[in-house]
Amino acid sequence: MRLPILQWGRGYDRKTLAQDGAAALIVTLMLIPQSLAYAMLAGLPPQAGLYASILPLVIYGLFGSSRTLSVGPVAVLSLMTAATLGQLSLKGIAYADGALALALLSGGWLLLFGLLRLGFVAHFISHSVMSGFISASAVLITLSQLRHLLGVPLEGALWQWPGVLLAQLDAMAPATLAVSVISLGLLLWARHGLGHLLQGRLSAGRALALVRLMPALVVVLAIVLSGLLELENAGVAVVQAVPAGLPALSWPDWARLPWRELLMPSLLLALVGFVESVSIGQTLAARRRQRISPNQELIGLGLANLSAGLSSGMPVTGGFARSVVNFDAGARTPAAGMYAAIGITLAGLWFAPWLSGLPQAVLAATIVVSVLGLFDWRRFGHAWRYSRADFTALCATFVVTLLAGVEAGLVSGILVSLLLHLYHSHRPHWAEVGRIDGTEHFRNRLRHRVELRPSLLCLRVDESLYFANAGQLEDIIATLVSLRPGLRHLVLQCSAVNRIDASALDSLLMINERLGLAGIEFHLAEVKGPVMDRLERSELLSRLTGRVYLSLFQAWNELGEANAGPVAGGVN
Amino acid sequence: MRLPILQWGRGYDRKTLAQDGAAALIVTLMLIPQSLAYAMLAGLPPQAGLYASILPLVIYGLFGSSRTLSVGPVAVLSLMTAATLGQLSLKGIAYADGALALALLSGGWLLLFGLLRLGFVAHFISHSVMSGFISASAVLITLSQLRHLLGVPLEGALWQWPGVLLAQLDAMAPATLAVSVISLGLLLWARHGLGHLLQGRLSAGRALALVRLMPALVVVLAIVLSGLLELENAGVAVVQAVPAGLPALSWPDWARLPWRELLMPSLLLALVGFVESVSIGQTLAARRRQRISPNQELIGLGLANLSAGLSSGMPVTGGFARSVVNFDAGARTPAAGMYAAIGITLAGLWFAPWLSGLPQAVLAATIVVSVLGLFDWRRFGHAWRYSRADFTALCATFVVTLLAGVEAGLVSGILVSLLLHLYHSHRPHWAEVGRIDGTEHFRNRLRHRVELRPSLLCLRVDESLYFANAGQLEDIIATLVSLRPGLRHLVLQCSAVNRIDASALDSLLMINERLGLAGIEFHLAEVKGPVMDRLERSELLSRLTGRVYLSLFQAWNELGEANAGPVAGGVN
Repeated sequence: MRLPILQWGRGYDRKTLAQDGAAALIVTLMLIPQSLAYAMLAGLPPQAGLYASILPLVIYGLFGSSRTLSVGPVAVLSLMTAATLGQLSLKGIAYADGALALALLSGGWLLLFGLLRLGFVAHFISHSVMSGFISASAVLITLSQLRHLLGVPLEGALWQWPGVLLAQLDAMAPATLAVSVISLGLLLWARHGLGHLLQGRLSAGRALALVRLMPALVVVLAIVLSGLLELENAGVAVVQAVPAGLPALSWPDWARLPWRELLMPSLLLALVGFVESVSIGQTLAARRRQRISPNQELIGLGLANLSAGLSSGMPVTGGFARSVVNFDAGARTPAAGMYAAIGITLAGLWFAPWLSGLPQAVLAATIVVSVLGLFDWRRFGHAWRYSRADFTALCATFVVTLLAGVEAGLVSGILVSLLLHLYHSHRPHWAEVGRIDGTEHFRNRLRHRVELRPSLLCLRVDESLYFANAGQLEDIIATLVSLRPGLRHLVLQCSAVNRIDASALDSLLMINERLGLAGIEFHLAEVKGPVMDRLERSELLSRLTGRVYLSLFQAWNELGEANAGPVAGGVN
Repeated sequence: MRLPILQWGRGYDRKTLAQDGAAALIVTLMLIPQSLAYAMLAGLPPQAGLYASILPLVIYGLFGSSRTLSVGPVAVLSLMTAATLGQLSLKGIAYADGALALALLSGGWLLLFGLLRLGFVAHFISHSVMSGFISASAVLITLSQLRHLLGVPLEGALWQWPGVLLAQLDAMAPATLAVSVISLGLLLWARHGLGHLLQGRLSAGRALALVRLMPALVVVLAIVLSGLLELENAGVAVVQAVPAGLPALSWPDWARLPWRELLMPSLLLALVGFVESVSIGQTLAARRRQRISPNQELIGLGLANLSAGLSSGMPVTGGFARSVVNFDAGARTPAAGMYAAIGITLAGLWFAPWLSGLPQAVLAATIVVSVLGLFDWRRFGHAWRYSRADFTALCATFVVTLLAGVEAGLVSGILVSLLLHLYHSHRPHWAEVGRIDGTEHFRNRLRHRVELRPSLLCLRVDESLYFANAGQLEDIIATLVSLRPGLRHLVLQCSAVNRIDASALDSLLMINERLGLAGIEFHLAEVKGPVMDRLERSELLSRLTGRVYLSLFQAWNELGEANAGPVAGGVN
């Protein structure tokens, strides 16, 4: 385990301090409304969000490898937390216990993967699956906030909602609707109109910072107006009392926590958090020619989540919008995150009691506006045009997540993409290749004008040979050979064969034997080093009726000319 | 659905009839003891084996595509049947109902796969997994027969057996032991000594046939001696009364059968039966330059199993030893199998009552001797030397099958081999390639003496690019570029890239952008046709800072010479 702080801490000077401090101020002001809103989204008390934005930021700052990632509660993880805790509460397990165990367990997974250097597991969530999952999450999050925006408890399945809504039309408070409409309007205008307005008057970075601070401004405005207009008496649901002060570090009652039920959900939560965080971290690092280490990220995020679990917080990871603001505001080192933690602590100490009048509808509006950008509808069109397999994985993830929930959606997306990958590799593309005139290069006879020879068949198979496709190669060769009576030599061009497993070795031996019986020599060409190393430990090379050539061109020269004569007359 | 009989039936003449008839006689004499023994192994009454060797043979003869496959009960399927039915009986489901449903369901699966042309699913059982499974099955089958050979009920876990044995030493009948030893001795001698004895005196085919008939001879001998010596009174367990006559076609009581419990076991049974049968069928067909159609095989075997289920039989598939005998004895068409069915019918009509005195120990001895050859210990050594991944899959299947049963063993073997395949492809092998002097061929600089250029980096990645390894390529290139300050061009040789999915496309775009920022042009070479088709539908080609070259040699010529001058001075 490394301590990245030892690297960046050494050269820390006043200028860096000023840059980090300025970024921290803006991030703090962004984090306060986000913390409250994502805690509400997760179904937790508002202080859980604040607490998750203190200790985890400090811990990540010490152990994480990204210099500008802003760690804290994020929308998608909050949705996953809500889904998981909702399931648990059906089994009679307390929400608080569940949230605690979820943060600890997902932290444990991340730390474990980091220490075992197993960061690669995250690669098995393809971009298409992740995109489908996030888009579906955006829809689910928006739907989940409708009850707060309308001020009506929406229960049951989606298609029952219109009925529920109609039945409760009388109970709806006009004040809640007004609050929702005004805050949604303000936030949407800030996002789409304010930027235009500021263009030319402020630098792009400052304009973005101002846009990003609007949610904080709206929250402050809402608290003030809520107090003045006594909105709670007008039927508007408000945030309940938030205790002032620091979170108490609590040693959990290990035996009581629902470890077993959370093993799988926490794994998925950890993976999603890691994938999101790493992709943001890599993008930002690349902009400044820095690098992040995925395994160090796992350790940093793992410890951050463990500390969230021990300080009454909720699961955390790097947030996209916050990190971009942090970067643009000039943060140079992870110290910026630590300063933001101080900011949140002060806010918690001084402003927490003030929060209790805040209408829930305002928080819901900030959530809805911030997740609107997560729905990546362009990706559907791109995937459709580029690759049907990716489109299928994307749609499967999206639809299953919407209909059956986040866990089922993610798992089925991963499975679908893996199965499609296997399905493709089990049906290898192959081509009979010929020589492109005047070169030593060989290409598909169906796509290029190439030279061919009657006694020589050059076959390129475009896949590693392994158990799932070994039988196909036998079939392909049997078919080709049956169509070519004058054939004397078959050369398998292995430039695209990256691996030959034991099943495929059996098939090659079988092909060699069958071709031998038919009087055809079997040759290999362009066998890669690692593949050749392995073949040398097998009996294939000693049994081969032909030879192994370094290049297909060599085989072409030797086999074509020496045997050109007899072939014309026909051998078989 | 085709009827292969229409092909071979047309030219059917007297000579073929004589050849098929002779083969059928030998196969019938082999099938009788095998049917009885495998029914006992499956825990079913002896007639189930006989019945499974009548109608299924006729049906397979009509619909199957192999000309010499001998269908009927086989050892491994009988073991799987016993394991499945044992599980069911714990849940209080009758053995007979279970066997019926198992044959019907596995027939249904096979037929379904055949009609949907899904024969490829069988490819996902690798040779290593199948070999480990069959070797473990041979051990399990041998162990399961110990109770019959010793005449003592062996219950509980394997490590308890010595204790159980000692406790029941008194109850052991010496006569049973004598029968076991004598029949084992005779059968082993027939297998290993008789062949030598006959060498030179008979043709190889006739000698093999005689060896294969020894079990039938031993059974007849045992029946005669058992009657004369009144072995049953000496404490030897004998086969109970076998009803004479044909099986009644029975329409099952669909509602009562345990469909749900058998869905998974019947699928595995169908797959194993299919894989075994197809590999035998292909080997025999290749010897006479014939071909079999996997999908037609699925239909043939599926209908055969359905008919077994409807005629009080048990699951069937092509048997290895029997099929080889059938082939060697000169069978030319599937009619040989139909004649064998007639032979079994006559045997059932006339000899069934005689079977009732046959000692079970004799059947156990025929089972043990016939499965001895299934244990493929050589494969372990080969796999170890050739590929650790294959060795792992082989051992995992073997060990889990032995310890946790056939179903768990097969499933975990398939999963392990798939995971290992994915694990390998997620860490692509790559090489910096250079030109082999005087050729247009490029190879790994670490393995061959090649020419390199300071401003040009030629990189070959030996794997299709997809979600699981896309991130790795970014890492590899970032590392290589950071070590080469004078670099101006990077060419990715795509000869081994058989597919680029949407995640990898994202990575290529990212690499292109990052290289562009560093002043390095990004080129592709030797992109395969299908990959290129797809790239043309993406934005990569329009954004590419470099070009796409037909061959790496072209790129080498154009990029090397034109830019050789400025590079010497250094650009970045």
